[in-house]
Amino acid sequence: MRAEQAELAQRFRDTRALTRNLVWHLSEADATLQSMEDASPAKWHLAHTNWFFETFLLRDNVSGYRLFDEDWPFLFNSYYESEGERIARFSRGMLSRPTVSQILDWRSHVDDAMTPLLGDPEHAALIRLGIAHEQQHQELLLTDIKHALFQNPLGPAMFEAIPTRGKALAELEWHEHPGEIAMVGYDPAGEGFAFDNEGPQHRVLLEPFALANRLVTNREWDEFIADGGYRNAGLWLSDGWCWVQTEGVTAPLYWRDTENFTHTGWHPREPDAPVTHISYYEADAFATWAGTRLPTEFEWEVAAQGSDPVGGNQLDSADPPLPRGGAEMFGDCWQFTRSAYLPYPRFRPAEGAVGEYNGKFMSGQFVLKGASCATARGHSRASYRNFFYPHQRWQFTGLRLAKDV
Amino acid sequence: MRAEQAELAQRFRDTRALTRNLVWHLSEADATLQSMEDASPAKWHLAHTNWFFETFLLRDNVSGYRLFDEDWPFLFNSYYESEGERIARFSRGMLSRPTVSQILDWRSHVDDAMTPLLGDPEHAALIRLGIAHEQQHQELLLTDIKHALFQNPLGPAMFEAIPTRGKALAELEWHEHPGEIAMVGYDPAGEGFAFDNEGPQHRVLLEPFALANRLVTNREWDEFIADGGYRNAGLWLSDGWCWVQTEGVTAPLYWRDTENFTHTGWHPREPDAPVTHISYYEADAFATWAGTRLPTEFEWEVAAQGSDPVGGNQLDSADPPLPRGGAEMFGDCWQFTRSAYLPYPRFRPAEGAVGEYNGKFMSGQFVLKGASCATARGHSRASYRNFFYPHQRWQFTGLRLAKDV
Amino acid sequence: MRAEQAELAQRFRDTRALTRNLVWHLSEADATLQSMEDASPAKWHLAHTNWFFETFLLRDNVSGYRLFDEDWPFLFNSYYESEGERIARFSRGMLSRPTVSQILDWRSHVDDAMTPLLGDPEHAALIRLGIAHEQQHQELLLTDIKHALFQNPLGPAMFEAIPTRGKALAELEWHEHPGEIAMVGYDPAGEGFAFDNEGPQHRVLLEPFALANRLVTNREWDEFIADGGYRNAGLWLSDGWCWVQTEGVTAPLYWRDTENFTHTGWHPREPDAPVTHISYYEADAFATWAGTRLPTEFEWEVAAQGSDPVGGNQLDSADPPLPRGGAEMFGDCWQFTRSAYLPYPRFRPAEGAVGEYNGKFMSGQFVLKGASCATARGHSRASYRNFFYPHQRWQFTGLRLAKDV
Amino acid sequence: MRAEQAELAQRFRDTRALTRNLVWHLSEADATLQSMEDASPAKWHLAHTNWFFETFLLRDNVSGYRLFDEDWPFLFNSYYESEGERIARFSRGMLSRPTVSQILDWRSHVDDAMTPLLGDPEHAALIRLGIAHEQQHQELLLTDIKHALFQNPLGPAMFEAIPTRGKALAELEWHEHPGEIAMVGYDPAGEGFAFDNEGPQHRVLLEPFALANRLVTNREWDEFIADGGYRNAGLWLSDGWCWVQTEGVTAPLYWRDTENFTHTGWHPREPDAPVTHISYYEADAFATWAGTRLPTEFEWEVAAQGSDPVGGNQLDSADPPLPRGGAEMFGDCWQFTRSAYLPYPRFRPAEGAVGEYNGKFMSGQFVLKGASCATARGHSRASYRNFFYPHQRWQFTGLRLAKDV
Repeated sequence: MRAEQAELAQRFRDTRALTRNLVWHLSEADATLQSMEDASPAKWHLAHTNWFFETFLLRDNVSGYRLFDEDWPFLFNSYYESEGERIARFSRGMLSRPTVSQILDWRSHVDDAMTPLLGDPEHAALIRLGIAHEQQHQELLLTDIKHALFQNPLGPAMFEAIPTRGKALAELEWHEHPGEIAMVGYDPAGEGFAFDNEGPQHRVLLEPFALANRLVTNREWDEFIADGGYRNAGLWLSDGWCWVQTEGVTAPLYWRDTENFTHTGWHPREPDAPVTHISYYEADAFATWAGTRLPTEFEWEVAAQGSDPVGGNQLDSADPPLPRGGAEMFGDCWQFTRSAYLPYPRFRPAEGAVGEYNGKFMSGQFVLKGASCATARGHSRASYRNFFYPHQRWQFTGLRLAKDV
Repeated sequence: MRAEQAELAQRFRDTRALTRNLVWHLSEADATLQSMEDASPAKWHLAHTNWFFETFLLRDNVSGYRLFDEDWPFLFNSYYESEGERIARFSRGMLSRPTVSQILDWRSHVDDAMTPLLGDPEHAALIRLGIAHEQQHQELLLTDIKHALFQNPLGPAMFEAIPTRGKALAELEWHEHPGEIAMVGYDPAGEGFAFDNEGPQHRVLLEPFALANRLVTNREWDEFIADGGYRNAGLWLSDGWCWVQTEGVTAPLYWRDTENFTHTGWHPREPDAPVTHISYYEADAFATWAGTRLPTEFEWEVAAQGSDPVGGNQLDSADPPLPRGGAEMFGDCWQFTRSAYLPYPRFRPAEGAVGEYNGKFMSGQFVLKGASCATARGHSRASYRNFFYPHQRWQFTGLRLAKDV
Repeated sequence: MRAEQAELAQRFRDTRALTRNLVWHLSEADATLQSMEDASPAKWHLAHTNWFFETFLLRDNVSGYRLFDEDWPFLFNSYYESEGERIARFSRGMLSRPTVSQILDWRSHVDDAMTPLLGDPEHAALIRLGIAHEQQHQELLLTDIKHALFQNPLGPAMFEAIPTRGKALAELEWHEHPGEIAMVGYDPAGEGFAFDNEGPQHRVLLEPFALANRLVTNREWDEFIADGGYRNAGLWLSDGWCWVQTEGVTAPLYWRDTENFTHTGWHPREPDAPVTHISYYEADAFATWAGTRLPTEFEWEVAAQGSDPVGGNQLDSADPPLPRGGAEMFGDCWQFTRSAYLPYPRFRPAEGAVGEYNGKFMSGQFVLKGASCATARGHSRASYRNFFYPHQRWQFTGLRLAKDV
Repeated sequence: MRAEQAELAQRFRDTRALTRNLVWHLSEADATLQSMEDASPAKWHLAHTNWFFETFLLRDNVSGYRLFDEDWPFLFNSYYESEGERIARFSRGMLSRPTVSQILDWRSHVDDAMTPLLGDPEHAALIRLGIAHEQQHQELLLTDIKHALFQNPLGPAMFEAIPTRGKALAELEWHEHPGEIAMVGYDPAGEGFAFDNEGPQHRVLLEPFALANRLVTNREWDEFIADGGYRNAGLWLSDGWCWVQTEGVTAPLYWRDTENFTHTGWHPREPDAPVTHISYYEADAFATWAGTRLPTEFEWEVAAQGSDPVGGNQLDSADPPLPRGGAEMFGDCWQFTRSAYLPYPRFRPAEGAVGEYNGKFMSGQFVLKGASCATARGHSRASYRNFFYPHQRWQFTGLRLAKDV
């Protein structure tokens, strides 16, 4: 096995182990909770990521492979229309069976069956996709279970609390960029992996702009609230103001007085840590209030092209994720851009079920850049495009301000 | 301790043990499922019945008693407004914590603390209420978990299947009653227990009528379907027809081709067993189709006054409940009456929280009589008044026809 | 033409004229408004009552009669399933065409075609039904347009204001009744008309009770509010308390400070006039607060059997209806009873479409007795059974208290 | 008065007259209809456009001007938060009062009061805005009333039918563009009017592309349907497929067999006319099915920069609008682009209420370019940005295909 294959095999095993370790911290009941239609049970993430490898690698490429259980694809397909019928999304929380233990057996079975494929370069692209897919679900598993545990008035913790301290707050500084015709998107000559929505690489024309050196903090958000930010219609997009009124929003998600709900329960909020769990509407209103704006996805990407995507506060192991603050472009929180999530010039979805991965979501959502404290380290890069609807805020979302110069 | 107290203490212990035994058959995840707003998790029933004893017996009557956990009343109060705030009803399914094991510890604690009270006649009335209350929740636990497991495409079973066979089908016969001024409601001179809604005892005037000797069967319901029963607006109440159209109803709940979903999974339907899991709308439409009608609650009660309420197919132990058929007035299925659930003449709810037990539900619901295969034996009697909304059908509901003579 | 036929013909013409006169007070746009699914446009009432005569009298009984317009039955059938498809209920407000003027032409056409039938005793029963039906829609026309005009922030008036003054407030007195076996329901030997739901006449057993000599007043309702009536869960039925919370109810419909919205716009509320536009939930909560209860439909009926149903404040002409207060059993407001709307013993709906008139609504509703200021005089009687869902309150509903003695 | 002012005054009078003439074709009841929350009554458009001039020109600039009616701003403000409270959007259909005639009087009053301002260059910018605003509402008036009349099963017509014939179908040809750095947005040196969202003018980088010479036709859409376009999930955006399933969409709005609903009632569909009343989801699915794509807003704008925006099938007078087909870039249908509606670089909303005009809608919507048969001629231009949500289709929307070269 060549070094490249060996390294891929190792990443496969590491990723699979991390998913398993995350579920370790949950009871059978915790792992079954589904708190809203946007979220899925931890158990379902555990199974769905396995379904991906069994379906697209084993079933499609290993002659004679027999499904571990023929009824399970119906349960654990997410949204691949070409893969047939599947359980209604908001019924995932009814899956008390199969048990976590049965799904772990299934994962072991699939891990074993995958071993011969790990060394075969022919399958490397799909394996890389499977790893990236599983990493995405690691992050969703963490944000979904946080939302579910939050529903419980007891405020239960997934992890033991770990004493952490936010880094010293950097003064807000603006890094100016003179504007240029820049190249963005994933370089196809690169060695690594990228999703189809990161390409084709293409040129964009940037006007001069400036980008903040750090994320907006809880302290700054407190000022926004104190200044009536949530009560001043003039700061908000029309849809955003409607959302504030209908939902009665007065603070970021998971705020209660001076506390935050975290994976380790309720804790005092760290003023100098980055604000998180905000919607696009909130990010946009804050930027307007501050006399600034959100960056475009391309401004952010060009500014980040020299930064190390593996740095910053990201997920290394099954420990509680929490934004702490720092100077890196990556880590802590996904950063809203004012760019809608749309196809790049000459973008074509891949053929087959795998082609449903990204392209079909290109309406109504906004692009987020960077990576969060719940993103598996190594998953993201400058060209990475995360995307959510403008009202959603159960992810570790934050904001970095931009302005015209 | 006198015999009466000893017998009450024994019934307390038996009831508590049966609840515990029912939950024995469920995994931690099963016990956490809540499939709809009308239903509650098994774990919640386990805890709520305990909350009842801790609150109204221990807290209110044992000086110095300290709550096992001060946060739990918020979680496990059902609807007692006078007992303060409580968790939103449809959030009960988010209670992965406390665990079943923690709740079982709580139950042991309460059982121990209850011991001194069991021998004291002063508390007998409230203890009897607590036992009756817990028996009601045993039945709900069984019907709620059935509904939850039904959501799972795998059709999982709560119990191992037990070979059962329906009794031979009795020919339909009509028992005539000449009409009279009859006494109904619970006799206050009786020794046993009754809910407040069963009294005051009072006279009613009955016209001549006839009542069927047995419940309607699955075979007869098949004929109703084959004759277009679900497509003929003329057979239905207006609200019922709207319900059929909106929900796309074409058969009783838990029917699929020739199979039924049961506590032991999917099984072939027994044609001669009583039909069950029907709504009031369906029962009424069937009776209209058959050229008959549903009995009033008083016709049923008078007809049942000589019957043994402890006979028939009822719940004795933690075994799978299933209607089998027979000639008894009690057991198999709760029987719809055409009587709305309203207060009896001179009815007054009790003072305090316990007074919220029945009276406040007296609008929009219909009375059901008898007992079902999931009713704890000894719980029901001729004067018993069960009640549900006309669209609900997740209980073991059935029908016995009546007609004018 | 015999005197009886001549009198019927006169009543037909008077009823038709009154409907027309009511619409006189509305613009084309007013007559098209539909403010909620429960209500219909005035124009629709105008047309639907005509459709009734054209369909069940002319089409079914006059050979060679041709429909005025073949497309209109689809528009103006209300709920008669046996009469085929019809427009979705909440789309009635989209019928800017046909115009009021076209519908008035249609009415003239039908009036002319009806002339020969008016003298024929064979059709008398159906004509009486048609008249009673049209009178019901006169009342609905008035309550529906009131609800529609109320939506307009300008508070427009349908009629010029007429100076009225409530009668002097009678002291609250209780009329006792010793209880008896009484005969209720419509006497089939009577000469007049009754709906099918008022029969068969039958015996009921009444316990001793007392009934108030007058309706509850606005002043008394103010006391209920001042005493926290809308904030005290203990006074409410469970469904009622849910309704209060969800809808944010704090007063009867059409109240604003010390004013009421009426058919003549906003006016100061008369303290001694009967309270109106309350739901069953509110009526029940008030009675509980007052330490009394609502009467049953049979208590009310027996108490009213000696009263003149043609007396009291009822509708005589196209003038603004408004409760004024008085000592009569009939008039001012429909009076809630605690009786669910259910079939009488041996009740059978009539055959055919006309059989859909009443029977199919017998679930979920409560009976109201008496007549209101918007009820055409002569329409009601002691056996009359009006019925609405417990949350509805756009009718002129009120309450007369009862108690046990 | 200088020529420029004279011309502006004439345009003011022409625009005001056209609005009035459109309402001429409607009865008082037609003008009051509101068929959905997205739409408003014709009467409301008539009043709201007048409110704009009264508020921002007369009230704010004419000392001593008194409002025609102080209660009306509450009724006829649309969404200007800074202008205070306003009637709930879906209650506009309850405004049977004031009457059309009263609103026409108000318009005359405002027209008279506006006369002195028309010659004053200081107010020219705001007057131009008011004219453009009124033109937008002329189009909405036409599309809203079409939707309202469509709800009526009689299929009533607003106008008499005018015999029209689609132009001969041009063969589909592709106009190639080599790509460039182009200037887009409104040229501030230009003399005319533009909305704030059309600027600032800025550079964009275009890759080579080709644009079709005409819009997609009904005949081509029939082929899409025949090929299973509405049943093939693979052609649709994820949100679009959900919309198709939930709404049961199988054809463009206003299609029935081989007919279309138009302002002159139901008529046979012209195969060679442009397809219209499609959503973004449908336009995108069609383009995918055709192996092409939608253009970006900048591709379209650059291609249109040489075209006459005053040409094509646009609205000149109060006649029935209907797409007919032709070779122009403007007219017939608004054309979907794949560009989200977002701010241009350095865009800043204007200060004050007028600043709420466009900027606050910049989330979740897509840009449409061109003009439709219901757009007042002279209203649009190459830089014009219309915008709607991706599911909306009650406007005259169509599509022009693009592809990469």
